[in-house]
Order: sequence, then structure tokens, then C-alpha cells
Amino acid sequence: MKVIAYQGEPGAYSEMASLNYFGAKKIRLSPSVTFDSVFKKVSTGEADYGVVPIENSLYGSVFETYDLLLNYTLKIIGELNLQIHHYLLGKENYKISQIKRVYSHPQALGQCSKFLTKLKNTEVIPEYDTAGAAKIVAGLEEPVAAIASKNAAEKYKLKVISSNIQNEKKNFTRFLVISSKGVEAPVKDTKTSICFDLVSTPGSLFRALSVFALRDIDLTKIESRPKPAKTFQYLFYVDLKGSLNDKKVVNALNHLKEISNSVRILGSYGIGKTFVS
Amino acid sequence: MKVIAYQGEPGAYSEMASLNYFGAKKIRLSPSVTFDSVFKKVSTGEADYGVVPIENSLYGSVFETYDLLLNYTLKIIGELNLQIHHYLLGKENYKISQIKRVYSHPQALGQCSKFLTKLKNTEVIPEYDTAGAAKIVAGLEEPVAAIASKNAAEKYKLKVISSNIQNEKKNFTRFLVISSKGVEAPVKDTKTSICFDLVSTPGSLFRALSVFALRDIDLTKIESRPKPAKTFQYLFYVDLKGSLNDKKVVNALNHLKEISNSVRILGSYGIGKTFVS
Repeated sequence: MKVIAYQGEPGAYSEMASLNYFGAKKIRLSPSVTFDSVFKKVSTGEADYGVVPIENSLYGSVFETYDLLLNYTLKIIGELNLQIHHYLLGKENYKISQIKRVYSHPQALGQCSKFLTKLKNTEVIPEYDTAGAAKIVAGLEEPVAAIASKNAAEKYKLKVISSNIQNEKKNFTRFLVISSKGVEAPVKDTKTSICFDLVSTPGSLFRALSVFALRDIDLTKIESRPKPAKTFQYLFYVDLKGSLNDKKVVNALNHLKEISNSVRILGSYGIGKTFVS
Repeated sequence: MKVIAYQGEPGAYSEMASLNYFGAKKIRLSPSVTFDSVFKKVSTGEADYGVVPIENSLYGSVFETYDLLLNYTLKIIGELNLQIHHYLLGKENYKISQIKRVYSHPQALGQCSKFLTKLKNTEVIPEYDTAGAAKIVAGLEEPVAAIASKNAAEKYKLKVISSNIQNEKKNFTRFLVISSKGVEAPVKDTKTSICFDLVSTPGSLFRALSVFALRDIDLTKIESRPKPAKTFQYLFYVDLKGSLNDKKVVNALNHLKEISNSVRILGSYGIGKTFVS
């Protein structure tokens, strides 16, 4: 029995991501209040794996996850994409014109902004979690609604008032699977995630990217985050295609070390499949 | 009389940034509920200038501002840095042990997390705005407090219970000044901000950065944002040292256009001064 920690209440998209990645058998799900507590549970061994969102195709990167990858010494052992479908859920099948308040995570509210502007006289209440919003609505006897997953509707016995209410059909969240130990990456279709701290000189990022470009290594993502205790200086996170079994990746990383203060390998893992929520 | 739009209630850090940049004379401040409404006011001419945060030295970039720079056709005409000091404010000089709830913006709550963990039995309530949190506290007769600026204390007649409660002393927010018309950038100490959409091929970012590195143009910031309606593809925003009056900057941008789907110049402006909140 493996324990999987995720952030949110039961019914959260992270729970669906966990079930899609690991399957429902022989696992125990461990809902957690914060992203930090997911990392903590995996670090202390209270959980075997953690499943955390790293970016959404509309909203962009999840900063907190990037920072926690650095603050803890866990390894990324996998990833998956989840296509996000938002639903308007209520305790009864209320008419849309009756609904007094809509609860959800600010990101979900933003992703459904076009739908929400059509609701006149409806107050919008931000909550920390879509499934948490569904739980609140399940506890109220008024005509209020939550924006959450279909899964949350089942968990909290809510009716689907409106389906697929997000602005854009193509709405994907990429999740990382983290563990205290790395895994042997698959031979094909592999990604490696790294973080590096460059010496701040003109052209330093260009030279850092050259170590990959000169070896035809494809980068799938680059992200910058503030350096702790340095004002307006940045750390860079890069995802590249290939694994630590590829000689050219190893060479590129050795080359990168020559021109960086530090390079950290966050993990080599199989490129993620896409699931539908 | 120039009208300056900013996001937040009176007493917000953006208001302090506006006053530091423009001075208090011959301006009228226009508080706005959302970042979008700041951009809208400047676009329609309801305001002459807008002042919006673009990044914090601890928290990172403000995504919404990046996206609005693209959605509107305004120009960046200036920038400034504001050193952020957070204060715990109450209607009375409550003892810390008495305080039942603390209200503030999630970013300010995060920046004061070490202070907050020392407050046992105190509930933390996220609000959309630090000055808005101060306004709420001013309206309540219970022992509750807000985390906000010293300016907000004056505006809402609150007492300073605790000063400089942020985790890190070095905490700066960089603000942009936007206008519907560009300005003639100063001759020295200039920055230019651009956004470009690369053809997605391996090495494309490396080639894009080469147009600057090969001409010794220093980059001060790079940010990526999701491409609208493209899943896990990115637009890049770059700040570089130099202005559109520099021949080498013009050459670099022409070179960049050769290898990009599109290049947009967001503005050339003087490098920002630093003020203290």
C-alpha cells in the first residue's frame, strides 16, 4: 500500500491526477492543506509520493512548487497532464438566475470569467481550493454554487448545474510526481529537470543555453525565480528532453557546471501522458 | 492635473509608488479594483498614467501585469522600485496575544509568515489588497489586525502594533508606469522591454538570446508566459539595457524579427530609482 499526498480536499484536481497516475488500487490518498505539507510528508516518509501541479496551460507556472523543489531535496520521478473541465455545482439544480454566490479557487474563477460575467447579481467568493468550495456549498441551504470538478460533485453529492464552463476548451494542468528517491528513467521519451544558479554577468543565460543548443538538446520549459536574499537576481529552471543515461546530456550538464555557481538535478523521468478530468 | 490610476484602496503600496514617482502635486489618484481596470482607464483616457507592480524580489513576477501588457497596446514609460515594509495595524494598540484574526493580501501574509507562526490561536484571513484589509479592520470593534503599509495606518486611523514584520529585510517591488503614448527615453541609463513569439523549434530561445549576446546587450530580466490557445508553448518577455536610440539595440531587434513570429516593443524608459515605503 503506497501513500500518495496531494494538496486540497478530496475531489481536488490533484486527487484526480494522483488516481490517473497511480490507479485506484493499492494506494491510500493523503489530502494535505498546503503544498509545503505535501513536500514535508514525502520528506519524512509519511507519504511515499507527492503529486503537485507545476503549470497550467492558460495560467502559467505554479511558483510555490518551483520554490519547494529547491527547498526540499526530493526527486521528480514522473509527470502527467490533466485536461481541466470545470462544472458549476449546487446542492439543488438551481436556476442560474437564482444563484446568490459562487465559490471557487481564484484560478478556476479566472478560467470561467466569461461564464461568470453572465451571472448578474451573483457574488464571487474566492476559496483556497475548488473541492473545498464544493464542500462549503454542500453545507449551505441557500441557492449558492461552487466551480469544481465532476469528481467533487460526486464526493459532496452536488448536482451539476452547468458543464464545461471554462473560457477555453484547451485547459491543461501539468503535475509532477515527487519522491524521496529518484527512479531509473525510461530509455525513451525522457525528460530531465534541472535548476541552476548563474554568475550574474552579461550573456550568462545565453552561454548557459548554449551548452544544450550546441549538443542539439531540446528544451521544453524555462522558468526563472528570484534568488533568495538577492534583489532582482534569478535562478533558472529548465526541462530538457533526454535522461542522465544520455552521454550528451551528461556532457551538457558538466559544461553548465563550469559556468554556474551551482547546478541541481531535480530528476529524470518519463514524459507525461494526458488524462481528462 | 494628471490622473494616475493604480490598483487597490487608498493606502495601497501602488498608491505610494505613484506618489513617489509623480510627487503629490498636480496629480489626482484614481484607485481601481483590478489591474485590468487600471489598463482600461489609461486606454480610454480616463487616466493619463497607470502604476502597476511587475515583480517582487521575493515572490517573483506578477503574471497578470505581463498578460495585460500584451492585451492592451499601452507603452511602458517608466519604472521604480519600492522597498516594502509591512506593519501590523489595529484599531487599538492590542497585545499580540489578544488578536483573533489577521487580514491581508496572501502575498503580504506569505512575506510575514515567520511573524505569523508565532501568533497562536490567531486566524489568518486572505484579502485582495493590504489597504483593503486595513479598511476592514478599521470597521470592526473586535481585537483584529491587518498587515499593511504605514500609509494605510494613517489613512484608516489605525495604531501600529508591530513594525517591519516581514521575513526578509530586503523586500522590493518593481512597478511600471504605463501610458497610451510612449516617451522619448533618456539618453543614459535606459531600459527597453519587449515581448516576442518564437517559432517553436529546438534551440529557438538560444538563437533569440544570441541577437543580444552577440552585440553585448545586457538583459536584466526574462519571463515566459503561456501562448494563448497553445498548450505548453510560451511567449518571452525580455528587459534589456539600452534604448531604441541605440543602433545596436535596433539591429538586435531587427535580427530578432527575422527568427520570430512577432516582436512587440513595450517601451523604452529610464532605469528606475528606489524608494522606501
